[in-house]
Formats: sequence, structure tokens, C-alpha cells
Amino acid sequence: MTDRDAVPAASSTAGEGAAAPERALVVFANPEPASFGASMRDRIVDGLREQGVEVDVSDLYAMGFDPVARGEDFRDRRFPDRLWYDREQQHAVRGHTLPDDVAGEVEKLRRADLVVLVFPLWWFSVPAIMKGWIDRTFVKEVAYGSARRYENGGFAGKRAMIVTTTNAWPGMLEPDGLMGDVEIVLWPLQNGVLAYTGFTVLPALVANAVAFVDDDARTGILEELDERVRDWRTAEPIPFHRSDEVGEDWRLLPGVEPRVVGHRRPA
Amino acid sequence: MTDRDAVPAASSTAGEGAAAPERALVVFANPEPASFGASMRDRIVDGLREQGVEVDVSDLYAMGFDPVARGEDFRDRRFPDRLWYDREQQHAVRGHTLPDDVAGEVEKLRRADLVVLVFPLWWFSVPAIMKGWIDRTFVKEVAYGSARRYENGGFAGKRAMIVTTTNAWPGMLEPDGLMGDVEIVLWPLQNGVLAYTGFTVLPALVANAVAFVDDDARTGILEELDERVRDWRTAEPIPFHRSDEVGEDWRLLPGVEPRVVGHRRPA
Repeated sequence: MTDRDAVPAASSTAGEGAAAPERALVVFANPEPASFGASMRDRIVDGLREQGVEVDVSDLYAMGFDPVARGEDFRDRRFPDRLWYDREQQHAVRGHTLPDDVAGEVEKLRRADLVVLVFPLWWFSVPAIMKGWIDRTFVKEVAYGSARRYENGGFAGKRAMIVTTTNAWPGMLEPDGLMGDVEIVLWPLQNGVLAYTGFTVLPALVANAVAFVDDDARTGILEELDERVRDWRTAEPIPFHRSDEVGEDWRLLPGVEPRVVGHRRPA
Repeated sequence: MTDRDAVPAASSTAGEGAAAPERALVVFANPEPASFGASMRDRIVDGLREQGVEVDVSDLYAMGFDPVARGEDFRDRRFPDRLWYDREQQHAVRGHTLPDDVAGEVEKLRRADLVVLVFPLWWFSVPAIMKGWIDRTFVKEVAYGSARRYENGGFAGKRAMIVTTTNAWPGMLEPDGLMGDVEIVLWPLQNGVLAYTGFTVLPALVANAVAFVDDDARTGILEELDERVRDWRTAEPIPFHRSDEVGEDWRLLPGVEPRVVGHRRPA
């Protein structure tokens, strides 16, 4: 899998004297440039640059990023008569024919040691423009492949973190809250997108009720964010299960205790 | 809340001699017209029509539906200097200034007794084009409001069901499977989108590994789908918690046992 060669080794983030500078990618999806989310994005970028990290920012609204995955993404179709989107992604990676906007994002992902997704939580998930960024740029052959998932995923060795704002009151997203456990709300993103493709996933920063809280509360959120940014290399990640913890039936092996919210032993 | 008046009462789906015919909305998001998902869509539409149900189909790719929520959606802004997307939705509903494409979908939602979402599971969620359909058409004031959620949501009295195809092997989405419990994977959609806005949510039909299984397996899936369509009025729904089961702290009241996957009592 030649793509793995393009992925920075985990040790490049550990400061072992690697020549290449550390890099981060901050992906931002918010239609309001003056939102609190934009303040968070700026704080992340500033904090990382103060550490000497080189930062790319993908501001999806500002870029006018097209979120719709479609056949027209591929100018050299392997299967012209029927669209298999993932197989065409793989074919386009091998033939260097990814569309320009996707290729640019893939390159930013490849060189990043840290990826931070910054977005308002809309309907328990990312805004459509960020979902489409995932659909189109987490391409098969780079991000994942037939046996390349979780610890063997294309982005193994990189770290990722979600930073999100909500209009929910804090209790609503507690494990016994009205909307359910925020870790379950974020499961598709943290496990299904990030851990699946190999990222080491740091705990999310979820800033609740941002439209309703006062300036002091907002200052507190930004200070917490500063700490998260400061500690990105060393913070304890979420211990998602690895693919070597399941058997041929794809289920957790005997003796493996479910240790994250998405798994449990059948009753 | 005058919008509630436009929502068919629950009894209109129970065949109690209401004059208006039953209606369904089938929302479809798949870039390949010859996909197995398209076969499922057709089977749903045919099955409902055989029952005398009038069916609207929103084929989002065929419609070229724009999934990006942005300030330009509102030609009469209540807050011109800063975008609060949900507040502008509310303002546009009251002033009848929703954009045409959104207004059309809102009208289909209003008159539907049943909504079926048909999509391939991409990254543990809907394709971006369907996420944007949710972002833009589940408008505040129609779908939900400040105290209008769950049993009081704008779509109370309607039923909804997810029909999705995956490339996962079945064991992967079991509670102890590599990718986690499919009910948790679907939590943001089933609880956060559908139950939150008042829908009675029927169990999802998840057709795994559709690219890899043989024709007999596909036939079996379509037969199961026929049964689901036949039983849509009477099938036992997922018992999501109601908003009257939480206290002022938004947490499940003492004595309420968590009964769906997204909730648990803190350790």
C-alpha cells in the first residue's frame, strides 16, 4: 500500500528531532464569519502557531466547498456504466485524477499531524458542507482500504479532535439527559470517521448553549480550548477498539471488555 | 403555535374515516440511479401505492437539491448583520419567505403521514445531500420550537423509517461488532432528527453488504422491505424517551429507567 508511505509516521509528532515541522489542519464549517465558532477556530490556529506548528485552515463556507459526491467527480471512470463511488475514488488516487478541490484537501490531510474539526452541532452531526467534505475527501485508498481501518487506517499516527458548539443546555447531553449521551451523539464522527481511518481521537470539546451564555462563560470555554490545544501531543485519547480485537465474525474477541460507549455484549 | 394546525393529527393515519387520503414522502439520496437503493425506493413507493397511499418522492440527486444552509436562503433577514440560521428560518416561516426549494420540501413534510429516508450509509450517516435536506427543511417553527420537541415536536402524529444500505459485513454492526451497535450509529438520525421533531420512529431496515451479496439475498431484503411497508401503520416503534420524562435539569426523572441505547444512568 504505497499510500502509507505518504503518511507521516507517528514519531514525527513526538518531537524526536524529525526535520519536517509539525503540521495541523483546521477544518471549519460555519456560515457566520462572526460566530463564536470562528473565535474558537482563531484561538486554535493562534495556539498552534505559537507552538511552531504550521497550520492549514480549510474554511469550507469561504471556499465554497462542494459537498455533493457525484459521478462527475471522476474524469476517468473505471466503471463508466455504474457508479461505485468508493471504487472510483481508489481508481482516481492510483491514476492521479482526483478532482482538484478534493486533491487539495487530501494533500492537507496527508501532511497533517493533527486535524481539528470545528463546527456547530446541527441535528446531532456536522453541517452538510462538512459531511460532504468527509464524503469526498476521505477517499478510499488514502483514508482506508479493504483491511486498512482503525489501527491500520490511512491516517494512523495522526491525532484528531472535534470542537463543536451547541444550543443545548448542558444536562441535555449527559448520559441521562434528554438528547442522550454526547459520546453517543458523536459516535459516528469520532468512531466511524476518525478512529476508522486510523486517527488517534482526542476527547471532544463541546461548548453548550453558546448563544445564551455570558461573556465570562465564553472566556472560560476559550481558556479550556487553550489547554486542549497546548496538550494535543500528550492528551489521553479515547480508547476506541482496534480491529485486532475482533475475530473473523467481526465481533469483539472473548475476553475483550467493551470499553467505549458504542459497544456492549448482547444480553 | 399555528403550525400545529397544519400537521395531520395522529388519527388520520389510523383509518378512522378521515376524508383526506393517507400520504407518504419517500426521500432518496443516491448518485447511482441503478443502485440497489433505487430498487428499494421503487419497492417502497409501489407497496404504498398498492395500499392507496399517495406518495411524494424527493430524489435529491435528481432534483439537484442544494444541501448548503447559508444566509442567502433568506431574502428578508430579521438580523441582517449576523446570521442565526434557526431564527431566520422561524422568521421566514412566519413571513412566508422560505426559499422555494425549501418551501416545497416543507410542504411535503407537512402533509405526509409517513416519511421514509432511503440512503446508503456513508461514514455512519446520511450522504451530505440528505444531511443538507435536513439542515434546510427541518425548519424551526415547523419541525420544532423552543418547547416543541419529542412528543410536542412539529411532526408529532407522523411515522418515519430509515431504509439504508451498507458495505459492512453484518457482524460489524452488532452491539459487540467492530463498528459498534447500529442503533448507536443511527442515534443522531433516529433520535436527534426524527424523534426530536415528533416522529414516531419505526425500526430501521439496514441492508448490509449489498455490493457483495447474491441475488437471493437481495430478494430476501426486498421481501423484508415489503413486510415493513405493509405494516407501517401498526409496527411497534422505537420507544424513545419523551420530554415529559425529564426534569428541569433535562435529565431523566428518578424512576425513569433508560430504555433506548443513547441513555444510561451515570456510574
